[in-house]
Amino acid sequence: MLAQPASPLKLNRLLLTGAAGNLGRELRPRLKAYCEVLRLSHRSDMGAAAAGEETFIADLADKDRVHAMLTGVDAVVHMGGVSTEQPWEPILAGNIVGMVNLYEAARQHGTKRIVFASSNHVTGFYRQDEVITPRAAPRPDGFYGLSKAFGEDLAQLYWDRWGIETVSLRIGSSFSEPRDRRMLATYLSYDDLERLIVAALTAPIVGHSIIYGVSDNQTSWWDNTPAKHIGYRPQDSSDGFRPAVEARQPSIDRHDPAALYQGGAFVKAAPHG
Amino acid sequence: MLAQPASPLKLNRLLLTGAAGNLGRELRPRLKAYCEVLRLSHRSDMGAAAAGEETFIADLADKDRVHAMLTGVDAVVHMGGVSTEQPWEPILAGNIVGMVNLYEAARQHGTKRIVFASSNHVTGFYRQDEVITPRAAPRPDGFYGLSKAFGEDLAQLYWDRWGIETVSLRIGSSFSEPRDRRMLATYLSYDDLERLIVAALTAPIVGHSIIYGVSDNQTSWWDNTPAKHIGYRPQDSSDGFRPAVEARQPSIDRHDPAALYQGGAFVKAAPHG
Amino acid sequence: MLAQPASPLKLNRLLLTGAAGNLGRELRPRLKAYCEVLRLSHRSDMGAAAAGEETFIADLADKDRVHAMLTGVDAVVHMGGVSTEQPWEPILAGNIVGMVNLYEAARQHGTKRIVFASSNHVTGFYRQDEVITPRAAPRPDGFYGLSKAFGEDLAQLYWDRWGIETVSLRIGSSFSEPRDRRMLATYLSYDDLERLIVAALTAPIVGHSIIYGVSDNQTSWWDNTPAKHIGYRPQDSSDGFRPAVEARQPSIDRHDPAALYQGGAFVKAAPHG
Amino acid sequence: MLAQPASPLKLNRLLLTGAAGNLGRELRPRLKAYCEVLRLSHRSDMGAAAAGEETFIADLADKDRVHAMLTGVDAVVHMGGVSTEQPWEPILAGNIVGMVNLYEAARQHGTKRIVFASSNHVTGFYRQDEVITPRAAPRPDGFYGLSKAFGEDLAQLYWDRWGIETVSLRIGSSFSEPRDRRMLATYLSYDDLERLIVAALTAPIVGHSIIYGVSDNQTSWWDNTPAKHIGYRPQDSSDGFRPAVEARQPSIDRHDPAALYQGGAFVKAAPHG
Amino acid sequence: MLAQPASPLKLNRLLLTGAAGNLGRELRPRLKAYCEVLRLSHRSDMGAAAAGEETFIADLADKDRVHAMLTGVDAVVHMGGVSTEQPWEPILAGNIVGMVNLYEAARQHGTKRIVFASSNHVTGFYRQDEVITPRAAPRPDGFYGLSKAFGEDLAQLYWDRWGIETVSLRIGSSFSEPRDRRMLATYLSYDDLERLIVAALTAPIVGHSIIYGVSDNQTSWWDNTPAKHIGYRPQDSSDGFRPAVEARQPSIDRHDPAALYQGGAFVKAAPHG
Amino acid sequence: MLAQPASPLKLNRLLLTGAAGNLGRELRPRLKAYCEVLRLSHRSDMGAAAAGEETFIADLADKDRVHAMLTGVDAVVHMGGVSTEQPWEPILAGNIVGMVNLYEAARQHGTKRIVFASSNHVTGFYRQDEVITPRAAPRPDGFYGLSKAFGEDLAQLYWDRWGIETVSLRIGSSFSEPRDRRMLATYLSYDDLERLIVAALTAPIVGHSIIYGVSDNQTSWWDNTPAKHIGYRPQDSSDGFRPAVEARQPSIDRHDPAALYQGGAFVKAAPHG
Repeated sequence: MLAQPASPLKLNRLLLTGAAGNLGRELRPRLKAYCEVLRLSHRSDMGAAAAGEETFIADLADKDRVHAMLTGVDAVVHMGGVSTEQPWEPILAGNIVGMVNLYEAARQHGTKRIVFASSNHVTGFYRQDEVITPRAAPRPDGFYGLSKAFGEDLAQLYWDRWGIETVSLRIGSSFSEPRDRRMLATYLSYDDLERLIVAALTAPIVGHSIIYGVSDNQTSWWDNTPAKHIGYRPQDSSDGFRPAVEARQPSIDRHDPAALYQGGAFVKAAPHG
Repeated sequence: MLAQPASPLKLNRLLLTGAAGNLGRELRPRLKAYCEVLRLSHRSDMGAAAAGEETFIADLADKDRVHAMLTGVDAVVHMGGVSTEQPWEPILAGNIVGMVNLYEAARQHGTKRIVFASSNHVTGFYRQDEVITPRAAPRPDGFYGLSKAFGEDLAQLYWDRWGIETVSLRIGSSFSEPRDRRMLATYLSYDDLERLIVAALTAPIVGHSIIYGVSDNQTSWWDNTPAKHIGYRPQDSSDGFRPAVEARQPSIDRHDPAALYQGGAFVKAAPHG
Repeated sequence: MLAQPASPLKLNRLLLTGAAGNLGRELRPRLKAYCEVLRLSHRSDMGAAAAGEETFIADLADKDRVHAMLTGVDAVVHMGGVSTEQPWEPILAGNIVGMVNLYEAARQHGTKRIVFASSNHVTGFYRQDEVITPRAAPRPDGFYGLSKAFGEDLAQLYWDRWGIETVSLRIGSSFSEPRDRRMLATYLSYDDLERLIVAALTAPIVGHSIIYGVSDNQTSWWDNTPAKHIGYRPQDSSDGFRPAVEARQPSIDRHDPAALYQGGAFVKAAPHG
Repeated sequence: MLAQPASPLKLNRLLLTGAAGNLGRELRPRLKAYCEVLRLSHRSDMGAAAAGEETFIADLADKDRVHAMLTGVDAVVHMGGVSTEQPWEPILAGNIVGMVNLYEAARQHGTKRIVFASSNHVTGFYRQDEVITPRAAPRPDGFYGLSKAFGEDLAQLYWDRWGIETVSLRIGSSFSEPRDRRMLATYLSYDDLERLIVAALTAPIVGHSIIYGVSDNQTSWWDNTPAKHIGYRPQDSSDGFRPAVEARQPSIDRHDPAALYQGGAFVKAAPHG
Repeated sequence: MLAQPASPLKLNRLLLTGAAGNLGRELRPRLKAYCEVLRLSHRSDMGAAAAGEETFIADLADKDRVHAMLTGVDAVVHMGGVSTEQPWEPILAGNIVGMVNLYEAARQHGTKRIVFASSNHVTGFYRQDEVITPRAAPRPDGFYGLSKAFGEDLAQLYWDRWGIETVSLRIGSSFSEPRDRRMLATYLSYDDLERLIVAALTAPIVGHSIIYGVSDNQTSWWDNTPAKHIGYRPQDSSDGFRPAVEARQPSIDRHDPAALYQGGAFVKAAPHG
Repeated sequence: MLAQPASPLKLNRLLLTGAAGNLGRELRPRLKAYCEVLRLSHRSDMGAAAAGEETFIADLADKDRVHAMLTGVDAVVHMGGVSTEQPWEPILAGNIVGMVNLYEAARQHGTKRIVFASSNHVTGFYRQDEVITPRAAPRPDGFYGLSKAFGEDLAQLYWDRWGIETVSLRIGSSFSEPRDRRMLATYLSYDDLERLIVAALTAPIVGHSIIYGVSDNQTSWWDNTPAKHIGYRPQDSSDGFRPAVEARQPSIDRHDPAALYQGGAFVKAAPHG
């Protein structure tokens, strides 16, 4: 949690979806500093509400619940839905149907901005010796990445058609520390994740912008120059973890697609409808 | 129907989905020349099978039927699904779920190439004073265009991951003649549609390629140069229809989004979840 | 003059400036077919008005006269001002001050579209072995080209700020025939000039578009692909004139800047303030 | 003022125009360190000359005075002319006629390099969610920005034609501190302005180069990568001022063109001829 | 042979190297029409000289002979050297050492322009579903393509350093007719080869330009837009040969690198040093 | 020498060619930290082998010696061959024939990665007011730069054809300190050279990547963004040397090609075959 919030701006009511997920739990205490009321949602129990919190159990595929969830909300940090490669059905429910429900509700309830947890797996089939920008065309590495590409296109539609702003974060690997050699390139520290979300919430004008969510790692496949207007500046890096990671994983099989493509092991997880 | 097929190559069994739709009915007699057996599918009755035809009633959202439909098929011309802006649910069923069913079946049954009827509405929110290529990022103009963007990304995934080839045709306006001034730019004659599909079926290597489906109209918003490898050369044009169209529609309201954006009236058809 | 106008659309009152200039005289009888009333303007006498014509003597640097000139006008074909390299003062008066007067008058009188005779001399300092598009940054070859670059930027401003549409024509060499080897690349026949202006007047949406005015010459330095939405298709070519031109000018001095740069002899005409 | 000049190089006589303007006053004591004699010019009184200074009252529209002003000058820092949106006539006099006078005088007197205070308002009609480079085509937001686009094109001409080098600085907002939220992106500290001018004066080869004049602000719309050869590295940032600025201006009206476009309030200042 | 030479321009002495090779024999009678004297060279006997011909036996690796060969030559059509994939040594001698000898001799003898038979194998490792321009970076498919990339770089050096002009022709497949399905895309008719060489010889200014040598085939991987200044317009096409070719080669093995890459079978010819 | 190697990864046997050259002598003690055995090669004596070292005298043009040299090698740092502008023959032997020998030996002996000392002179004919990326097309400034362009194309071939990875380092000016004003832009400190080589050796996947070898100098002509995947971050800069350099070289002759082009004095060193 950042010692000092980056911005004194305060939203009235901010909705955090997926609040009981891995990143949701990390963000829950952090985002409280940027709003009067933090509404938390998840499809299952997320514990008792603390001061300034509201909890709201909702399945994203349930249109009525999603509409209720958006009532009175100024902005959304949408971490909900499926966040790993899985069979098609749960991805369809959470990330396709759920996204449409969310944006339709946002449109009807007048929500003005959504920070959408997209994923680097939207472009997972680019190679690790390619450097791409947020304008790179989608090359999803599975149903999960495909559903996130859908989410980005949906966000573009709601901006072009209805003026709802979105920042789509193509999040790398946000964990307490990088776990393998691939993550030396994709690591996003929790503090940088907070910085990124705050920048996305507070940038004056974003339309629909796409940005890779990554710390200031020495090795990188992503060039965020076209998203400089967001004002995100990472402060952390995977570099300090490098010796330990390399010691644990001293060699790489360059014939393994998981080593060759940016999506890592996701490119081998079989889509199965 | 072209007097002489462009190519002597013959597929064994070619599947035409959406065979009873507007374009499907036009293509049914034309595609027979390029295959031994033309399997026709639609979700409702499509009349009796002629010589060399097979009919197969299937709802694309029905996974089992779609798997049966793909059995023994060499290539697919996928015109099925929803082809206009509609409420979300039928688009979800036909164009999202149906597409996943189709590609999963193609993967399991060894189909090697799919010609996919995508749409110019994938990029309908570009302006009519912009010229774009097939590499332009999606700016869908509604749920229909959004579903076609999804289809293109799915096709990319099945190429990158499974080696199934697709040509995505961002079809303009394929009718017997252009009906309004917008169609002077977007018109695709039926003969050129046939040429385009045959080129897409017979080009030696296509990976996943995207191409705009449009005749050789004087005015155009689309530059197909990056798809020259497909070998599609339109022979028709909207130009001869221009006087009649302009006489019928002498003026344009430049403040109307339908006149400003490439998607035309689709940009105003409200998405409603 | 085209045997048959390209379009049945008729403007009510069309203003042609520079009507007594070289191209103005050529266009005067041609443009009559596209409007009810053709208002002709020049800074000096332009002869008696024919049926359907109005004449209006005006110096473009005279703000009041220009305002009067624009009254009741639907569209403008702006051929007026200085059209060759000259000392700064007349260029300033005709092409800088005169352009501002014209657009301010158009704004106040509600004129909706201007076809502006810009010039290839906006980009005259590109080399003859370079191929550029209308998006190439200005490299003017003298005060004349500089003033036309100013005109294009002014047109962009009035589109962005006030919604007045302009097509800026970077005209090559519009004469009855190509006069030297450079014009084999830059030649624009009078019929193609007419086609270009009609396309620019009748394209549904143009915003501010830039297009090179050139026939379908075998050799070309200009790629108009980004302006395909204008719908201009040249029908003529310098090719038939090539033997005679090459016989008259059998050799080229490749050390002569006039042979090296696209602007030809203009690049050597000294600017002198 | 930088504690230590960035470079020991000393020009003999450096001309600073607009010496009594806002930035001129700030630069007057700073630039003294980089030359033997600092010639100061303004159209009105600029106080007594200090040691190593010369003062020279001149209206830029007065050709003879401008010629005299350039006599014996090695390089020019051209801050003179109109620096805000104003009616057309003073902009014409100071920024159009005055620029031509300046460059003609430089040509005749052998001045080799000019650092030209252009403006971000040359590209003011790009949106605040777009990141552009110095190669972005002009989209001026008023007569002021239009005149600066003219100046850049003039500089390009004098480089291509006469070999006079210019660095055009598209200056952001150079004040003692950022005054509003837009300036968090456009702020250029006085020290960074000095660094930028010194880099532009001392870079070995510049031809005609364009660079945005901006500090190292977290949020930025401008990518100066194509101008890395200038060697400008900002040391300051608007970031420390952010809390105070946001406290003073807690909300933004996203429907206000001044909030949407990079030019800010300039996009609404009516051009009036 | 073209019924009528494209241009009345006549060179005094034109050198054709590789005159007894496949394309040299085809060009020998054709090029006579464009020069007073056609000097023919080959490393072995090329038959008796006809009227207006000179023959000159020379090994390109023999520096002294190459210098003698260039004496009195106005321009060169360089078809000599190795033209297929071969072991490294002959390629080194003919295409590396020989090229340096040729350009050094041209420099010392004042030859002004060279038309260099480069090859599509410079870019043979691009895929057949990619469309590239002459600016595509080299991806040679063997020692032969590598040597042609070397030749292009050498030509660039002699232009930048010594002002000798070259047009590098990345020739496709120039035979009497296309022999297999790949050649449907790469076919260059002999008449079009003549047109291309004449255009390259007579274009006023070429610097060092690169252009793909290909007829107007329906299917193409190459976009020559950046070389429009050469003025090459193919008149022939592989299209008429398509039915026969496809009948002879009805199927393609898409797992065969020769089918996947633009270089065809060359990509499998093992380099062996 | 870096106090602490950047990476704990250890190669078994690493070959350093050109070990007795200027950079080879600098690298010899540094590279020992990254491998079990450092094999050193040069065409002449390189002194006694220290612990963990092997010495191997070999002329690169001697195919058999080169094959022996590659036996048992995991990776190569190829600093050998000619490293300055020289007559053609030694460049041919060392940098053309020698490179082919090296890669053929690597292919036959199973070497997996080569770090190739290419040179900024591959692109020496770009101007000093241009900023280029590693994707810039070659514009060599002499036989030396030409031979390095050949080496890069060879490396590309062996990657596309045989899967041997190369990082081509377009090294700037690697000396103990910058010696003139040009080197303020091109300086590469020895520590940064070590960082660059280590990054190139240890990046997980590189295919064939090109990167400029340059420290973090304030002024730069090179943008390494497309090579971010290498993970090279310079820590040094020429900036501290600037006052001394500028004092020694106070003025620049802008008409001198050595001052105008990135290659500096190399552009004037006459190629002589």
